[in-house]
Amino acid sequence: MSVCLSPANTENVSTLETAMQLMIQTFHKYSGDEGDKYTLSRAELKVMLTAELGNYLGNAQDKEAVDKVMGDLDANNDGEVDFTEFVILVGALTVACNDFFLEYNDKGEKK
Amino acid sequence: MSVCLSPANTENVSTLETAMQLMIQTFHKYSGDEGDKYTLSRAELKVMLTAELGNYLGNAQDKEAVDKVMGDLDANNDGEVDFTEFVILVGALTVACNDFFLEYNDKGEKK
Repeated sequence: MSVCLSPANTENVSTLETAMQLMIQTFHKYSGDEGDKYTLSRAELKVMLTAELGNYLGNAQDKEAVDKVMGDLDANNDGEVDFTEFVILVGALTVACNDFFLEYNDKGEKK
Repeated sequence: MSVCLSPANTENVSTLETAMQLMIQTFHKYSGDEGDKYTLSRAELKVMLTAELGNYLGNAQDKEAVDKVMGDLDANNDGEVDFTEFVILVGALTVACNDFFLEYNDKGEKK
């Protein structure tokens, strides 16, 4: 992986590589606030969900909603969300959104 | 998922939502060329790998390399990569790149 691009390298970066960089940057923007700087605590997860996915998960203010996402994501039950668990959340949401668009497009094509 | 953002909506889109949109856009840019417009054929996969991940998978020109990625990704063995299989590839590469950066940073912090 010696060819992984650093955030400082913005030349010749493809659309997909940009998406990958944005996921990495987003996680570390929130994971460094408290405790282990490479994982999201419950408090950091709540801040991230509200700021980044407010449109998708409208009620992240709700403590129960945050607890549910944490429970679903925290596969190893250590009360922290690591980067792999974060990528699984983002991937699942992206697949759900893609399905939504396909369904919407299919309806649009029918006459 | 009625709140999934359309590509036309560029206002109030968070960094993470941008990353999700870019993944969806990238897949459909290549999947529509031939056959099922919602999956990547072997030929479409090769074009996508070369254009979007050339820095990561340097030898995607190589037929064997494309066959290996297709074999690893095509979980249901239908010779096509669907969006979920694509997201798993992107997620795995992103986790590998994140690990690479953490290792690099840790080395930098040691004196």
